[in-house]
Amino acid sequence: MPRTVYLDNATTTALDPEVLESMKPYFLEWYGSPTHEYGHTFGLKAREALEESREAVARNIGANPEEVIFTSGGTESNNLAIKGSVLANKDKQHLVTSRIEHTSVLNVAKSLERTGHLRVSYLNVDGEGFIDLEQLKNETSQETVLVSVQHANQEIGTIQDIEEIGKICHEKKVPFHVDAVQSFTKVPINVKEMNIDLLSISAHKFHGPKGIGALYVKEGLKLKPLIEGEYHEFGYRSGTENIPGAVGFAKAVKVVDDSQLEHMRRLRDYLMKRLLEVPDARLNGPRGDLRLCNNVNITFRFVEGESVLLHLDMRGIIVTTGSACFSRTLEPSHVILALGLKHEDAHGSARFSLSKYNTLEEMNYTVENVRDVVEQLRVISPVGR
Amino acid sequence: MPRTVYLDNATTTALDPEVLESMKPYFLEWYGSPTHEYGHTFGLKAREALEESREAVARNIGANPEEVIFTSGGTESNNLAIKGSVLANKDKQHLVTSRIEHTSVLNVAKSLERTGHLRVSYLNVDGEGFIDLEQLKNETSQETVLVSVQHANQEIGTIQDIEEIGKICHEKKVPFHVDAVQSFTKVPINVKEMNIDLLSISAHKFHGPKGIGALYVKEGLKLKPLIEGEYHEFGYRSGTENIPGAVGFAKAVKVVDDSQLEHMRRLRDYLMKRLLEVPDARLNGPRGDLRLCNNVNITFRFVEGESVLLHLDMRGIIVTTGSACFSRTLEPSHVILALGLKHEDAHGSARFSLSKYNTLEEMNYTVENVRDVVEQLRVISPVGR
Repeated sequence: MPRTVYLDNATTTALDPEVLESMKPYFLEWYGSPTHEYGHTFGLKAREALEESREAVARNIGANPEEVIFTSGGTESNNLAIKGSVLANKDKQHLVTSRIEHTSVLNVAKSLERTGHLRVSYLNVDGEGFIDLEQLKNETSQETVLVSVQHANQEIGTIQDIEEIGKICHEKKVPFHVDAVQSFTKVPINVKEMNIDLLSISAHKFHGPKGIGALYVKEGLKLKPLIEGEYHEFGYRSGTENIPGAVGFAKAVKVVDDSQLEHMRRLRDYLMKRLLEVPDARLNGPRGDLRLCNNVNITFRFVEGESVLLHLDMRGIIVTTGSACFSRTLEPSHVILALGLKHEDAHGSARFSLSKYNTLEEMNYTVENVRDVVEQLRVISPVGR
Repeated sequence: MPRTVYLDNATTTALDPEVLESMKPYFLEWYGSPTHEYGHTFGLKAREALEESREAVARNIGANPEEVIFTSGGTESNNLAIKGSVLANKDKQHLVTSRIEHTSVLNVAKSLERTGHLRVSYLNVDGEGFIDLEQLKNETSQETVLVSVQHANQEIGTIQDIEEIGKICHEKKVPFHVDAVQSFTKVPINVKEMNIDLLSISAHKFHGPKGIGALYVKEGLKLKPLIEGEYHEFGYRSGTENIPGAVGFAKAVKVVDDSQLEHMRRLRDYLMKRLLEVPDARLNGPRGDLRLCNNVNITFRFVEGESVLLHLDMRGIIVTTGSACFSRTLEPSHVILALGLKHEDAHGSARFSLSKYNTLEEMNYTVENVRDVVEQLRVISPVGR
């Protein structure tokens, strides 16, 4: 039996020891802050590390290095993309987004809506979580400051047709923001080919450090900073540069390879197939290539997600649920509800999110225990069959 | 001869190896994100680490743990304190600050001024950098949303009379924000006794990690978040919590002791005395207890600061300058100019900022080389004597 089976990688991942090694010299030896080209040795060394890291991240998404700015993470990137666009374009007061975005997009939209700054169109999704492209076309206009749609969903792994959405935004001449926090390094991204103007990414979702993310900002795009001070990050984001963070971020990008993605995909398909053999289990989100390679989300009817979570936890298996009581807001998952499922279905949903470190043995152990836990819970279930 | 004498600790410091050790388990083993009390083991472990770190930081400033929120650093804390106060108090449109604040305060003030949100009073300082308390009394009124004054200055080390400023703000019933990024752990702070409502601090100034800071927010104070999303940090700051950062921050606080401060003070006084023996050298900022224990700032007349910097760098000594060409904005130090000194004095100024790792041997090596470099530069100086 494995000691711990960590299946909450969509929330956050273990730091890769190789990534930690890459950060060490910048923690202990070259700990200076970047200076301009006539600065001191420590400043130049820091500057070099920062710019090399920026280049590595930019290369991965087909951007120029000077279009990538480091932030403290995906949430800050999303806030900067949306609020920065709204602040820079005060004549436009309409935002288009979807019902299944991450809270760092949805709650920013709601906050701007509440204060009267913005009118927001929330795009509907179908039963698998794909947004309504016709609605996107109809609702996007010259009044629209930004279209903000995620690349892959955080709960059910649905991968949107970003290229098609980019085309529509391009035709409508409306800037396009993509929250790619879940998909980055898992699904290929080319910001130029996909007509993306702003793209949010975060390091800790793929074994990089916490506390560092980035925002791609297309050259020439109008955007105001949220955090001001010195002229850091091309004027878009001030604060002493987190050099170890940036170096770790870049290293985490570099160590990703296709075999890891293929490994996760294989485990995902196996786990999905085996878990769906549990009676009254249904898959949330799509199958195949349009699903994130590391996401499995299943509703086990007639049980509570948090009971599944806690019982699996006692057996060393770490998962999450879209159930009401588990979330900080005490509301069931807005994603599951947007699919058209009932509250009960959200209650019994469990997410198993994989990483390169998971093994087939762990999948078997998980399947065995999920079957057992669900069966036991159903015997004592207050939710009648 | 020492290999490198790093005297740029007011910009950023080396990570303490003990601090790195404290972070490691949260990088590699307990890498989960905090959950609520019914979450999984990884979430509970992360939550415990976060709250213990919060408590350690709070204890140091006499705050309650729930009054401390983690941010990505001092710049974000300053932005949140000022912008968050302005957003939460739209009926008040006046800010009081000083001419020698850090750019993350001054440029936020200027930015809000430019967009027409705010009228700003910039308090004058005397020749040693102490703000004009009479002016503070006269300019602060019921229209004032916030008084923002730093604890200790980043360039010349002047320690303001925060207790007295706090008293004035309290009498005027205006919230008081203190940028304590330079002073935290070096000068005792008690937010309750000093009538402080908001206090910005940062970990990397005293051998903690980069990318993490905190803002003390007095219970009941009106403040709007800048970075929204999940309900993290009591609703004041969203984003996946940087647990290794928070743990390292707390560890850095815990390892500070008085003997380190005394050590820096002794080196500071020695370095100051010896450097002032250089002909035509003058001290910027005050002497004694009202000067930060790790700051020496001296103008060497008839030389350019960046020449001093580069020549010292070639000899392995890392310092900074308030000179025009060194700064990113190509403007001479606003702090040196606010003291009433001329542009030429800003040009020749050099800052030597110490840490617990510096030694007396390093001070002697520095003095020797500064004398030599300044003497040589004066021979070829374009600025006539």
